[in-house]
Amino acid sequence: MLSRVRSAVAHLVSSGGAPPPRPKSPDLSNAPSAQPAVPPEAPRSPPARAGSGSSAPAKTVEARASFSRPTFLQLSPGGLRRADDHAGRAVQSPPDTGRRLPWSTGYAEVINAGKSRHNEDQACCEVVYVEGRRSVSGVPREPSRGQGLCFYYWGLFDGHAGGGAAEMASRLLHRHIREQLKDLSCWSSQKEVTHESLVVGAIENAFQFMDEQMARERHGHQVEGGCCALVVVYLLGKVYVANAGDSRAIIVRNGEIIPMSREFTPETERQRLQLLGFLKPELLGGEFTHLEFPRRIQPKELGQRMLYRDQNMTGWAYKKIELEDLRFPLVCGEGKKARVMATIGVTRGLGDHNLKVCSSTLPIKPFLSCFPEVRVYDLTQYEHCPDDVLVLGTDGLWDVTSDCEVAATVDRVLSAYEPNDPSRYTALAQALVLGARGTPRDRGWRLPNNKLGSGDDISVFVIPLGGPGSYS
Amino acid sequence: MLSRVRSAVAHLVSSGGAPPPRPKSPDLSNAPSAQPAVPPEAPRSPPARAGSGSSAPAKTVEARASFSRPTFLQLSPGGLRRADDHAGRAVQSPPDTGRRLPWSTGYAEVINAGKSRHNEDQACCEVVYVEGRRSVSGVPREPSRGQGLCFYYWGLFDGHAGGGAAEMASRLLHRHIREQLKDLSCWSSQKEVTHESLVVGAIENAFQFMDEQMARERHGHQVEGGCCALVVVYLLGKVYVANAGDSRAIIVRNGEIIPMSREFTPETERQRLQLLGFLKPELLGGEFTHLEFPRRIQPKELGQRMLYRDQNMTGWAYKKIELEDLRFPLVCGEGKKARVMATIGVTRGLGDHNLKVCSSTLPIKPFLSCFPEVRVYDLTQYEHCPDDVLVLGTDGLWDVTSDCEVAATVDRVLSAYEPNDPSRYTALAQALVLGARGTPRDRGWRLPNNKLGSGDDISVFVIPLGGPGSYS
Repeated sequence: MLSRVRSAVAHLVSSGGAPPPRPKSPDLSNAPSAQPAVPPEAPRSPPARAGSGSSAPAKTVEARASFSRPTFLQLSPGGLRRADDHAGRAVQSPPDTGRRLPWSTGYAEVINAGKSRHNEDQACCEVVYVEGRRSVSGVPREPSRGQGLCFYYWGLFDGHAGGGAAEMASRLLHRHIREQLKDLSCWSSQKEVTHESLVVGAIENAFQFMDEQMARERHGHQVEGGCCALVVVYLLGKVYVANAGDSRAIIVRNGEIIPMSREFTPETERQRLQLLGFLKPELLGGEFTHLEFPRRIQPKELGQRMLYRDQNMTGWAYKKIELEDLRFPLVCGEGKKARVMATIGVTRGLGDHNLKVCSSTLPIKPFLSCFPEVRVYDLTQYEHCPDDVLVLGTDGLWDVTSDCEVAATVDRVLSAYEPNDPSRYTALAQALVLGARGTPRDRGWRLPNNKLGSGDDISVFVIPLGGPGSYS
Repeated sequence: MLSRVRSAVAHLVSSGGAPPPRPKSPDLSNAPSAQPAVPPEAPRSPPARAGSGSSAPAKTVEARASFSRPTFLQLSPGGLRRADDHAGRAVQSPPDTGRRLPWSTGYAEVINAGKSRHNEDQACCEVVYVEGRRSVSGVPREPSRGQGLCFYYWGLFDGHAGGGAAEMASRLLHRHIREQLKDLSCWSSQKEVTHESLVVGAIENAFQFMDEQMARERHGHQVEGGCCALVVVYLLGKVYVANAGDSRAIIVRNGEIIPMSREFTPETERQRLQLLGFLKPELLGGEFTHLEFPRRIQPKELGQRMLYRDQNMTGWAYKKIELEDLRFPLVCGEGKKARVMATIGVTRGLGDHNLKVCSSTLPIKPFLSCFPEVRVYDLTQYEHCPDDVLVLGTDGLWDVTSDCEVAATVDRVLSAYEPNDPSRYTALAQALVLGARGTPRDRGWRLPNNKLGSGDDISVFVIPLGGPGSYS
């Protein structure tokens, strides 16, 4: 994520310790991508030194950050070097020769243009087997073994201020979901509590447990920075899309666009943030005001009337400027430049437990939420054709590509392939990444319209909803 | 509002005092309904005695409540008695002979079937002149006088636990809006602060000032209970619909339904309420838990696993029952029976400053919000025909009538009248109220399908968007 955290790397605090224990392999059944999520050749970074304030050079910290790419890319050491090359920005996809991702999912990614040492995006695609806590009653089952069930899982993690949180989430979040889904076996229909609402609750809690694990282990291990998380779970006919951050998911179905997520930023979450600052003013540390003003107030404007809005307002009104209003606004800036406490540009995600306000010890984490919004799409309610897809992308894609442009690319690329050609979804993912990256020209990466392409990390999943090799 | 507040009237606390000072008449220009909002013949209730707990009989308190009907109904003393008759439930509308409401607005209302002594709904329809705070620059003006501008105003107020708050709001809220809109004259375009967002902010703040006035004057005057408020402001080509409560506004345009509000109830605002209880546990007084469970927990279930959800969750998950979970849930019940603190079924509105939890001194007001959600509809973006209308109704209408049924009635009634017949909108309002009330049959008010009609107060405005006498 490009410049999402201003000066935040300088505030990372990690103590030394043993390398993280390798979690035991996930319990997978029929999983085409059952390799361990962290390849043995991926270098592990040494523990970072304790942060000491804004004077610590960012590069020093970043040089020590972990670096790995998704296992399913099956990168050789040479391939890993090419994936890590900011100058070439080669688009990476799983090899044609290897085992395909579940549902013939397409995937492509590209590293940023130099804003961070490594690609801070991570991805995961798995088939996960859930053992029931006890005997399952009343729950229909996927093709499964024993008393459990299977879910399909895709995750995109867009890291900031280091790659550690994204790497950890890509390795572990689906296991937290698996753990939570064990409770499905206890379920029996009661009142408003549907099977679907239990899956939603399981995903919500899994995000929380993942975040808590990051908090617990941040001192002993290398869990630097934070990450946005966009996750898809397919279970028993329904697609659950969970988003915490500013990645985005859309379904393109017969040319129609169905939004499956919304972004959580200082602008979209302004009222939640302001309410928290209002109810818990101690979190503002006497440095910030929960009120928003159209511009920074000058001391000489004390007593004058100025536009403002608070946690209850969507509109603007006038107030007389008081001394407290001279503090820096909790939320300020517009668009991609909007920030919480002048520091972070995304308001939901995992990690960031050590994030402090620049030149201050004030923690920002209390304002960040690890809870995703979960949207549910019932795959059985519509007869999907091979051209219907769910597209997941990190903000590197969406910063320069509209939903409509993505839908147009879906149409253009898929119509160039036979409907039963499973490589078409990877080709589509590559086209989307290439279209957002652009080509090097005129001192920058440029799109065909000569506008600047995205200099951010870009990662895209294309999940066919009715294609060859899909659930059906 | 039927049974919206359980036992709440017993907790009203008002001290004695002088009768309320009559506010000075509103500053109106070209107002067809420029009569004072409170007709001289409307009886004013004496100040209520101090409430002394749940033993106070509701009837005693209610008997002292104020009773008036909207001025524009021009009711004679005899008419007022008929409007107050629970047995006949005659539908009331402005007389054909009098001056029409602005825009030929249609209006109809009917009293409840006996749940409260008087009709606790109130309504207001005015043209309001706003004088600028200082010379207006850059703001286009309606037909106006001097340096000000005019707005058209419609308000529906659905009272509970007495009629005082609704009556006061119907008399004063538009004056607070007028006061706030004076700031428009200070406006000059800057960054994201549009003219529209200033009007929205003015309406939001007017609701807050109205609520604060009720708080200030509740001891000296008769401001009993609370009320939902649904308000429409037309200004400079745009319709602003502000809703705080469970009334509803929809536009029916060429048969299409455009929702212009959403309802604020313990169910729709569960997460806001739970968050407040979580962040400010002292507001729960040790009597309530902010967690929600599908059913009340029994003491013998301590230590067992139970479904729950908290302020962050839309789904359900399991937790081990602890001692605190045995407290009563802050939010419980479903549909029309959902309650905050087992007491009130609506979570936004004006008043309710004295509302306490039944058999307790715990105040409920901190959980209620006086802030409306404001939606904006640009009238200039579409060429409206005389059959396009904005329908406002209290929950008495919507409890038994769907949006589609309202749209069908719009079509049926309006097509029976000439497009330029200004009485068609009143006929439509009457048809909607009659359709929700039903007719007395089989020991109750019944709809044609033999289901029970609404026993609640029912009030309906029908505002033509392109009809005769409208803004154009």
